[in-house]
Amino acid sequence: PDRPPGEDGGSGTGVGDETAEFGQLVSVAQGPRLGIGMDSCVIPLRHGGLSLVQTTDFFYPLVEDPYMMGRIACANVLSDLYAMGITECDNMLMLLSISQKMNEKERDQVMPLMMKGFRDAAEEAGTSVTGGQTVINPWIIVGGVASVVCQPNDFIMPDSAIPGDVLVLTKPLGTQVAVNAHQWLDIPEKWNKIKLVISREEVEQAYQEAMLNMATLNRTAAALMHKFNAHAATDVTGFGIIGHAQNLSQQQKNDVAFVIHNLPIISKMAAISKAGGNLFGLLQGTSSETSGGLLICLPREQAARFCAEMKSSRVGDGQQAWIIGIVEKGNRCARIIDKPRIIEVPYRGSVVSAQEGSNNNASPPEVQLT
Amino acid sequence: PDRPPGEDGGSGTGVGDETAEFGQLVSVAQGPRLGIGMDSCVIPLRHGGLSLVQTTDFFYPLVEDPYMMGRIACANVLSDLYAMGITECDNMLMLLSISQKMNEKERDQVMPLMMKGFRDAAEEAGTSVTGGQTVINPWIIVGGVASVVCQPNDFIMPDSAIPGDVLVLTKPLGTQVAVNAHQWLDIPEKWNKIKLVISREEVEQAYQEAMLNMATLNRTAAALMHKFNAHAATDVTGFGIIGHAQNLSQQQKNDVAFVIHNLPIISKMAAISKAGGNLFGLLQGTSSETSGGLLICLPREQAARFCAEMKSSRVGDGQQAWIIGIVEKGNRCARIIDKPRIIEVPYRGSVVSAQEGSNNNASPPEVQLT
Repeated sequence: PDRPPGEDGGSGTGVGDETAEFGQLVSVAQGPRLGIGMDSCVIPLRHGGLSLVQTTDFFYPLVEDPYMMGRIACANVLSDLYAMGITECDNMLMLLSISQKMNEKERDQVMPLMMKGFRDAAEEAGTSVTGGQTVINPWIIVGGVASVVCQPNDFIMPDSAIPGDVLVLTKPLGTQVAVNAHQWLDIPEKWNKIKLVISREEVEQAYQEAMLNMATLNRTAAALMHKFNAHAATDVTGFGIIGHAQNLSQQQKNDVAFVIHNLPIISKMAAISKAGGNLFGLLQGTSSETSGGLLICLPREQAARFCAEMKSSRVGDGQQAWIIGIVEKGNRCARIIDKPRIIEVPYRGSVVSAQEGSNNNASPPEVQLT
Repeated sequence: PDRPPGEDGGSGTGVGDETAEFGQLVSVAQGPRLGIGMDSCVIPLRHGGLSLVQTTDFFYPLVEDPYMMGRIACANVLSDLYAMGITECDNMLMLLSISQKMNEKERDQVMPLMMKGFRDAAEEAGTSVTGGQTVINPWIIVGGVASVVCQPNDFIMPDSAIPGDVLVLTKPLGTQVAVNAHQWLDIPEKWNKIKLVISREEVEQAYQEAMLNMATLNRTAAALMHKFNAHAATDVTGFGIIGHAQNLSQQQKNDVAFVIHNLPIISKMAAISKAGGNLFGLLQGTSSETSGGLLICLPREQAARFCAEMKSSRVGDGQQAWIIGIVEKGNRCARIIDKPRIIEVPYRGSVVSAQEGSNNNASPPEVQLT
């Protein structure tokens, strides 16, 4: 199937609710209400102080492995709940389109794998997929809806950052660069621009690393937001770290500004971005991410312990988190300092083919998604 | 923009959850659970006997008027809740794609109208749209998600039909034929086949009638399901009256079969179907409908009063409903009798241009959706 517009390899084709209007935070009788603008909507219900929190997201495949694409799509939808510190999901719906350009054999190979990936990630999240809709379309679409009914303490409204907080990020940046660099292995004029700074093998490893990161649930981070008294959070997706930092800053009740000092980036992706002439604006924070980490405002004294628990194999299953900036007094904006420190995040190695059910090798090239 | 596959003019391009597997009705500790297969999924919640009921649907435009298309898409999504006798909706999400073949001016004219139509219908339903996602795609997509948190008495599980019940339908059939006939006005080889049985003016009226019906909420019917003790219901969409009757029959706890005797059809659409060589199988009940009526199993002694209240301007705002069949003992199947009575449902006349906000005349031909 042909590719969606642009080759941004991220969710940047989305021109969704998050672009159009920024959210309005309205206090109503029954509880907080969060409308269009932030990651999830929060609807006060008629029943005993409960709220319905829900979110939807769908996009086009950006990795070749249908199973991993399904996992990524599911992790990406759930991430909007996790950004509010919500750890449970009551129900998911799956939104799919089958490409009309696939023949029957391709459909039968690709779609079940993609659906299995989505369902497996939902199961890992402790929820399940009980409905959805599938249509025929020129391009493949994959996405979903996540919904949960919450008590007031189950979620953290993303509006209470105070000067003195620090900013923590729970996944490295660079997924867009990694996905595109991987496509460029087969496009000589593109590859020639970056081959001086990275080997083919490293591109493959970076791509695997990006895929693993995108498929990782932000659920542990959501749970730790409660434990360490997070004041606000969002997830980093199509607008890049700076776009989402700005969105989040504009939701704040207090006069604050976010200043980012460190950029944790998948190893070598910064070099590729520079070699390509500031590709995607990665170092300016505008490169879009797919299913990125949570950006969390934490009390300064809690942040180091938050990061430590994320890394502990007992709690966070070896995930990482980095303190990347500070919250200071200001007028609800966000910026990256002039020469941010680039933290090169190493690849975990080629472990993805050992992933249970990933089926990376079983999927023949002709049914690759991109 | 080019058109979706086929010219079925209905939601038949959907190959969604309702095709793949029929629903399983599982009684769990907390309450009934309805999974993939029927109109909505029902998820027991962890909170005091409440259930989350939700549904999603999206498709491609089938009428030219963007505002009406938005209304139809919204009515179509909500219809899955109404089919369970649910009259309230806590939240809606909108799912949209903008066609990449539209220029900026077309987008700016079409998309706001479509969104307004969707929002206006949501408002009429007493709910609102607080989130969603928009992407760029070759074709326009419009749809949404409807969610509600219910107490046990708020919904009617579609599984309790008994022999002796009668079947009631709350909108006439024939939307697919009407929409296609309207397109054929401009396709001589198609038009020549049907012009002996219908005039151009009548095609236009039938199309307006179909559009009005598709945009009508099934909310009144949902409310009356409670008042008149409905035993089961579904809404009639992509699989036609017979497909949805069969689906519903298979959900039943009792050994029943549905027998349809009468087919209320938008006037002249049966004649078109015959002239076209049994077009879309309208008289066999296989012609797909978009945002069709509810098909309801009602106790025999209540059905006439149900229909009367639907028609009363006080309750049903002049909507119609027809007794179309009976429930007898059988093995969970549905059929139409050999020579069903065709009920010709007259057009209400050209009232659509007077619809508040419909903007039918203001929308120039170049931004038509089909």
